[in-house]
Amino acid sequence: MNAYLETLGSRAKAAAAQLNKTSEKERSAALLAAADRLERSAEEILAANAEDVKRAEEKGVSAPMVDRLRLSGARIADIAAGLRQVAGLSSPVGETIYAYRKENGLLIEEKRVPFGVIGIIFESRPNVAADAFGLCFKTANAVILRGGSDAISSNAAVVNALRGALAEVGMDENAVQLIEDTSRETAAEFMKMKKYLDLLIPRGGAGLIRSVTENASVPVIETGTGNCHIYVDESADIDMAANIVFNAKTQRLGVCNACESLVVHAKIADKALPAIYAKLKEKNVEVRGDERALAACGEFVPAAEEDYGKEYLDAVLSVKTVDSVDEAIAHINRYNTGHSESIVTENRENAEKFLNEVDAAAVYVNASTRFTDGFEFGLGAEIGISTQKLHARGPMGLRALTTTKFYCRGNGQVR
Amino acid sequence: MNAYLETLGSRAKAAAAQLNKTSEKERSAALLAAADRLERSAEEILAANAEDVKRAEEKGVSAPMVDRLRLSGARIADIAAGLRQVAGLSSPVGETIYAYRKENGLLIEEKRVPFGVIGIIFESRPNVAADAFGLCFKTANAVILRGGSDAISSNAAVVNALRGALAEVGMDENAVQLIEDTSRETAAEFMKMKKYLDLLIPRGGAGLIRSVTENASVPVIETGTGNCHIYVDESADIDMAANIVFNAKTQRLGVCNACESLVVHAKIADKALPAIYAKLKEKNVEVRGDERALAACGEFVPAAEEDYGKEYLDAVLSVKTVDSVDEAIAHINRYNTGHSESIVTENRENAEKFLNEVDAAAVYVNASTRFTDGFEFGLGAEIGISTQKLHARGPMGLRALTTTKFYCRGNGQVR
Repeated sequence: MNAYLETLGSRAKAAAAQLNKTSEKERSAALLAAADRLERSAEEILAANAEDVKRAEEKGVSAPMVDRLRLSGARIADIAAGLRQVAGLSSPVGETIYAYRKENGLLIEEKRVPFGVIGIIFESRPNVAADAFGLCFKTANAVILRGGSDAISSNAAVVNALRGALAEVGMDENAVQLIEDTSRETAAEFMKMKKYLDLLIPRGGAGLIRSVTENASVPVIETGTGNCHIYVDESADIDMAANIVFNAKTQRLGVCNACESLVVHAKIADKALPAIYAKLKEKNVEVRGDERALAACGEFVPAAEEDYGKEYLDAVLSVKTVDSVDEAIAHINRYNTGHSESIVTENRENAEKFLNEVDAAAVYVNASTRFTDGFEFGLGAEIGISTQKLHARGPMGLRALTTTKFYCRGNGQVR
Repeated sequence: MNAYLETLGSRAKAAAAQLNKTSEKERSAALLAAADRLERSAEEILAANAEDVKRAEEKGVSAPMVDRLRLSGARIADIAAGLRQVAGLSSPVGETIYAYRKENGLLIEEKRVPFGVIGIIFESRPNVAADAFGLCFKTANAVILRGGSDAISSNAAVVNALRGALAEVGMDENAVQLIEDTSRETAAEFMKMKKYLDLLIPRGGAGLIRSVTENASVPVIETGTGNCHIYVDESADIDMAANIVFNAKTQRLGVCNACESLVVHAKIADKALPAIYAKLKEKNVEVRGDERALAACGEFVPAAEEDYGKEYLDAVLSVKTVDSVDEAIAHINRYNTGHSESIVTENRENAEKFLNEVDAAAVYVNASTRFTDGFEFGLGAEIGISTQKLHARGPMGLRALTTTKFYCRGNGQVR
């Protein structure tokens, strides 16, 4: 392993051991100090961010990407508010989730404990550095951040402020560290750093997630790609369907819980598709349909088979007509990414069938897929949305950042 | 993917979809039928097992290995009893673990659901086929088994009986399938079969586990290697320490929760080590110690540094002397495999420090590490002991074979 990562890793491990001895009260106080310090450091952070933005513009990075990168006083205040909010959440560390006393008197208790050291690999949004730190720190985990090279100055300034705050309150500042070497080689080594990392969470687009899951030997939680479907059943309320599809497709185009594909029962297609399109048209959504969909709505363009596997993250929607709820479920289970899927129906039996048989982190009846989110689900915050089945599935709050441990207390018991 | 695995995979996926629609009552009845059928098939199973045993003996396989492979009428009855016991356990599938109603009326419920298709890769014990099937089936998962070539005839006969029972009760017999091609190439492809496998669990020795974690792209739960320590603190009750070490080292030598290393406070070494050795000697345990241990007990032999990292699975024990509980914890966290660690002490503060700071699935005060086991911990059964932190840690019962899903019920909610 390169000496730089070795140093970061051993410092993080030592910081995690210290964090494990802190109380939740101490960690919450440190998070409040970090929020204050971020706000007090706004000038330096904005200066660093201006460097990143300038470099990106010179490199010809696209306007939406530059936008993701850009910070402002208001955005820094939002980030600080996020840390204060996490400080106020209740940490699951220490919760007893199982207890059993054997006849011989041995008491066995399974409790939630921190993972130890968590690695976060993320792309250009500098707010991720502070958000991820907040959640990891609240659950007594040390974090090593590896952000994109585009945001390196902003990330360094944010992490510098966070570390300053930890030092202020007498905590080990190595509870948060940034990998300042943004080379691909170092990232590749980081993903294999099993000696120090207990968990790795990638935050970003499909390409980043794939690269991490393929190359990491550290345990990974996959987050986020969403090819989300809405199925409009034969018995659907058409107005409701149009509202839900409009919201799920257009409220925010570039998010993982946006609707990318509409599945519609053939018997309702002639009425439902024109009604749905009447709304989508307001936002200039291009609709790509199969033959029966095209017959129902003349303004659609033909879909290719590969359209059904696409996460557009754009003003485009595919449409597939089906002859039954079973066919809808089979289509969705074939093309989805295990994120969020919704049925619009007045038929209770079809609703339950859809909920039980569609294989995804979140399944809905008569609601927009846009609700799949840690805040919306009442978790208080989220470190990402897991589309895998191991450990955590769907929006991940503080609980997902803990593991468990069996505590066994005896007075000489043997087998 | 090779056509054979493709066929097994798609059949398993279809069986999992069917299983997902069954009730727990139906699955329990099927498990009872499987237990009966196994007993009725004893003659065929023993005949198949005799072939495996003969082949192993001709190949010159070691006596303990042949022993692991060998079945008898009594062992088949034990396997059947295991299935009946799992039939009687309560399945966690369907449990609601989180519920939240939004102000807008949307009801969000997080429930336990089956993984889908689980792969099990195991070595020569033919009982694993039936045991793993029982736990997977109870939680409505289809299972694909890949056993060692040594036990291929026995495994085929066992799986044949299980499939026969499923057919008898009108269930999809592809809920359990055996990979009959035991080549390494097919095993390697199996580990990458993400299209069909939701989870992979290796059951066997350290070499098998390592090979699976290094080569699989399917999510894996690591099970089982245990370099378990017992730390005898300065304040320990020496008789209790001797009893616990004797039990943890010698009750069964070849198991993952056996004690492999003794850590002892220097101030108590002169008294404790001879007392402990007096008992270990009865079972001809070889003790390899550091300098101070050798000084305390003349019958020890010198330990090399690498002894501290060894899972002997044999009548050998390493001994390390330390000057404090902190040094003991640091030594254990350096050499352990995250399985089970115990402190023998009368000092409450040291006990709590040890429990909190030792990084392992199970931590003990004043008890033998031999209790780390699903049955002993009251889980009713176990599919293995996880030494990783993701998803499941320690003995894994039925809960570890489930994932979760958010069910969201609305009446038109949009964001």
